[in-house]
Amino acid sequence: MDEFALIDAVVEVLGDRAGGDWIAVGPGDDAAVIDVSPGHQLVASIDALIAGVHFPADAPARLIGYRALMVSLSDVAAMAATPRYVLVSLTLPEPDVSWCRELALGMRDAAQAADVYLCGGNFSRGELAIHVSAHGEISAGEALTRSGAQPGDGVFVSGELGGAAACVRQRDFEFTEPLRPQQFRYMCPQARFDVAPALRGDASAAIDVSDGLAQDLAHISRASGVRVDITADSVPVHPDATLEDALYGGDDYEIACTGPRAPEGFVRIGEVSAGGGVWIDGARFEQRGYNHFSA
Amino acid sequence: MDEFALIDAVVEVLGDRAGGDWIAVGPGDDAAVIDVSPGHQLVASIDALIAGVHFPADAPARLIGYRALMVSLSDVAAMAATPRYVLVSLTLPEPDVSWCRELALGMRDAAQAADVYLCGGNFSRGELAIHVSAHGEISAGEALTRSGAQPGDGVFVSGELGGAAACVRQRDFEFTEPLRPQQFRYMCPQARFDVAPALRGDASAAIDVSDGLAQDLAHISRASGVRVDITADSVPVHPDATLEDALYGGDDYEIACTGPRAPEGFVRIGEVSAGGGVWIDGARFEQRGYNHFSA
Repeated sequence: MDEFALIDAVVEVLGDRAGGDWIAVGPGDDAAVIDVSPGHQLVASIDALIAGVHFPADAPARLIGYRALMVSLSDVAAMAATPRYVLVSLTLPEPDVSWCRELALGMRDAAQAADVYLCGGNFSRGELAIHVSAHGEISAGEALTRSGAQPGDGVFVSGELGGAAACVRQRDFEFTEPLRPQQFRYMCPQARFDVAPALRGDASAAIDVSDGLAQDLAHISRASGVRVDITADSVPVHPDATLEDALYGGDDYEIACTGPRAPEGFVRIGEVSAGGGVWIDGARFEQRGYNHFSA
Repeated sequence: MDEFALIDAVVEVLGDRAGGDWIAVGPGDDAAVIDVSPGHQLVASIDALIAGVHFPADAPARLIGYRALMVSLSDVAAMAATPRYVLVSLTLPEPDVSWCRELALGMRDAAQAADVYLCGGNFSRGELAIHVSAHGEISAGEALTRSGAQPGDGVFVSGELGGAAACVRQRDFEFTEPLRPQQFRYMCPQARFDVAPALRGDASAAIDVSDGLAQDLAHISRASGVRVDITADSVPVHPDATLEDALYGGDDYEIACTGPRAPEGFVRIGEVSAGGGVWIDGARFEQRGYNHFSA
């Protein structure tokens, strides 16, 4: 089994998710070729998922593949863009075709759910890691950044938080079908592309909740130069999670946003004012979200 | 030193190469936003460079950064596209700001040389590896793939081969300024964007010489369903390299192409006919190029 056979196996598994519609050239050439609509902008992001850090290495490969694509696409969702395509760079200690096929199946599941193509990739020998470059389109000028929050805006989230963090906190990593709800939240997140139209209409700034709600709001606070106050009681908490999980745990991939009114389907949790920092029930939040290189 | 400080340091080093012109939103948000010209297609590729496999870990970081971007951009050059932007996912065993700054300086050098932006990235803890997602634009339908070679075409290369392979073969990895010519070929390759107009005018298929000339021609042969014959005598060999280096060594990043006539600046080395396989002086080539998972 060599690299080229591995590529063939993965492309076979990807089936119609490897190319079509706006993909003029898919996997197997030097690069993919993507048709771009006139008047639109691309939204592009790259993420890494390292075994033992971002996912348990012994989790089912199909779940790992699904999650890798979804969490990377979530950055595109956070800009309120329409997802289009992903590229995947995979490093593996040994070529393992059946594992790669399962991984690709999960990626196909996620690609179908998000209506994107996985139109290029790369294999290398190395520690188990998945690097995903995710790309979307949006009408020129409509992308939601972290820097648009204004004093007077409300703060909103798109759904319950903490479920994924509860899974991580309890090291609940023995995955058997059907997954328990908190396991499902961790391994099968849904990038919130469904709320993109509402975000484009009503939000001033947005971010996906990947590092933890407080940490991610701190990104908005810093980028926008504003103070963000939230009320802990108003934060929607997953039934299997604690408030601590919901405030400080990551991996939920819901969307947090600011704006003059609640986008449809969002819950109000606080407000924006002049100043700086994130404040929870009046107490200043000090960074606790996940940081790869913190002590 | 934490992840966010590392990002700040790298963005500072990148300077005007982190955004501008057609980059509507650069590093620091969930994703980058790229303006796309009407009537154009994107060309997108992802590559990994693993320490100890694709580059010597103790080489100067600035050279590593330069090379990482250039070899990834070379896939865009191989499609005859105009390079636009790259995203970089970096894994590091420990945060080392001065090393990262040197790496970013090299990436800035390459970004300036290729006139692209490095408009997004990601840091994670892991073995030293650089994953680069490279993107270019081209007029719709003009991308050169591996699959367009026709019987009757000639086979051409854009320059001397084997210099980089000579460096690798001799393990000539003690880099002191000024670099020796074969070291320069290995650490400072030039993605051949300069020949893109000539390729678009005259070539039927193209590939960058990264795995080795014979291996890369085998990709064209397979994708196009044709036989490729080359004459060893006609292959331009780097002065410090052997014919073996030029035929089977990779890492040169010149362009090999097929077509009815030589694109300007290309040298004829063979011809295309009906059939299959790559033949050198009448002997069939068996795969010898670099393969990550070969025995």
